[in-house]
Amino acid sequence: MYYLGIDLGGTNISAGIVNEKGDMLAKATTPTMNGRDTEDILDDMAGLCEKLAEEMGIALEDIEALGLGVPGKIDKKKGILIYANNLNFKNVNIAKEMNKRVKLPVHIENDANCAAIGENVCGAAHGNKNIIYVTIGTGVGAGIIINGKVFSGSFGGGGEAGHMVIVADGELCSCGRKGCWEAYASASALRREGRIAAAKYPSSKIYELVDGNIKLIDAKTVFDAADLGDEVAEYILGKYINYLAVGIVNLVNIFQPETIVIGGGVCAQGDRVIKPLEKILDEKVYGGENKTELKIATLGNDAGIVGAAMLGRK
Amino acid sequence: MYYLGIDLGGTNISAGIVNEKGDMLAKATTPTMNGRDTEDILDDMAGLCEKLAEEMGIALEDIEALGLGVPGKIDKKKGILIYANNLNFKNVNIAKEMNKRVKLPVHIENDANCAAIGENVCGAAHGNKNIIYVTIGTGVGAGIIINGKVFSGSFGGGGEAGHMVIVADGELCSCGRKGCWEAYASASALRREGRIAAAKYPSSKIYELVDGNIKLIDAKTVFDAADLGDEVAEYILGKYINYLAVGIVNLVNIFQPETIVIGGGVCAQGDRVIKPLEKILDEKVYGGENKTELKIATLGNDAGIVGAAMLGRK
Repeated sequence: MYYLGIDLGGTNISAGIVNEKGDMLAKATTPTMNGRDTEDILDDMAGLCEKLAEEMGIALEDIEALGLGVPGKIDKKKGILIYANNLNFKNVNIAKEMNKRVKLPVHIENDANCAAIGENVCGAAHGNKNIIYVTIGTGVGAGIIINGKVFSGSFGGGGEAGHMVIVADGELCSCGRKGCWEAYASASALRREGRIAAAKYPSSKIYELVDGNIKLIDAKTVFDAADLGDEVAEYILGKYINYLAVGIVNLVNIFQPETIVIGGGVCAQGDRVIKPLEKILDEKVYGGENKTELKIATLGNDAGIVGAAMLGRK
Repeated sequence: MYYLGIDLGGTNISAGIVNEKGDMLAKATTPTMNGRDTEDILDDMAGLCEKLAEEMGIALEDIEALGLGVPGKIDKKKGILIYANNLNFKNVNIAKEMNKRVKLPVHIENDANCAAIGENVCGAAHGNKNIIYVTIGTGVGAGIIINGKVFSGSFGGGGEAGHMVIVADGELCSCGRKGCWEAYASASALRREGRIAAAKYPSSKIYELVDGNIKLIDAKTVFDAADLGDEVAEYILGKYINYLAVGIVNLVNIFQPETIVIGGGVCAQGDRVIKPLEKILDEKVYGGENKTELKIATLGNDAGIVGAAMLGRK
């Protein structure tokens, strides 16, 4: 059986056809070119579906269903993308619009939840009952799977673990609260700390690596400077990992999932991030006995496509 | 149909017979007298069961099942009470022991989870699918119900929302971490702040209400002094409620439950606590639109008995 999945992002539209196990059989991407007419973006999404089916030598009607992973606020039941920060869609019944175009049953889900499903079906948390997928990038997003199903609360908007305050009255978060996990554990937070430190300590490697052009500093610059043995970078990174750990330990104390999967840009650092986190987890988890495994996402950008495709699986 | 429930606490053993709707039909209590032989406590528990059946004019075999709400660490499947802070039980197969005595199927569950079930079945969160019961007393405990069932993670020890850090590197918590919600939002935390303030401001009503005997100050003293218009008490209470709110908003952002039920000693303050919490919730919840209701527990100490009894309901 074949399933179509689309990961609709602000930068790219990525689509794929997977089998019932979640194996990726064909994949294609096109730029979103956000700002265009919604209709044009929808047409491009349908175009990708047709292209992939053709590539596989099958007809669209041979496919069971189309799943869409979308950012922002959605009405899952009605198939409506209510609002997204970085997309021009506003109250668009994206399920209906895509159904018109590809004549398949269409399901929609939040993109972080799709990535969680993907990693749960055939990635780092394969076969687990309870998992939390944490994506660390511009923000900190989460997808929660309980008893094998996405959990997003009674009103469909839960799972916002990035907006769990870990430093009451701390750094201002984009959501308006102060001290959210996102404001301390996102790649943007590490970038912010890197820039502040470079301005304060021009002798540090963080400053040197960007030739004093502080605006060029990103999260990776801090990792790179620490790799060169820079003390300032090591200090910042240590603090950053501690904050990342605070949120992860909180989630373990509340959810005791089998696995917490770390995705997003920061996961490219692999053991560099996982090892110290595991150490803190073992020390700090309530009851002193941690059983939750911490893993780096294995599907990368494909997780969202696979998870979206799996929405149509019975 | 009849169900027996026992709430086994460090101070009292409370038992009750309820019907399938969770209505309390008969109730009895006896002191735990902790420190005694485990056997004696188990015998007293069985004695309460017999006494209640007699009072109702029924035989024990007319009862469907016995449920036990117990504190501490348990193995739910095996029926073992592994360890409890304030009880002398260690690795006791309490389900087997009680089955020997009353010849009924026996189920066990964590006491906070039992209270959550009780409030869900016939209390403040009656009929809700997803709820969180938060009990505020010496510590901060939680019982999480997802899709009508207790959720305690993949290893049975989840739900420790009181040990979610809300002030990284903050006050030392009894669990060894720093800055847990419990260290800021428990009645003990309010008592601590009240005592510190009284020592610092002997002109405050907090000090006056205990005639300068600071050791007599408890959480209620701070509420009472604030009711008298004492500025110091009002300031402390304002801060306390803010910390309480931080954790509640975190839980709403993650779980979006229909209801958060507040139980434990502090709930005696009713609207005095609920009203300011609701205001903060409306302002701070992610996405700006709070749908979760905040309610005071309605079953009081009966919640644990009712919830325990309901463990045996099919």
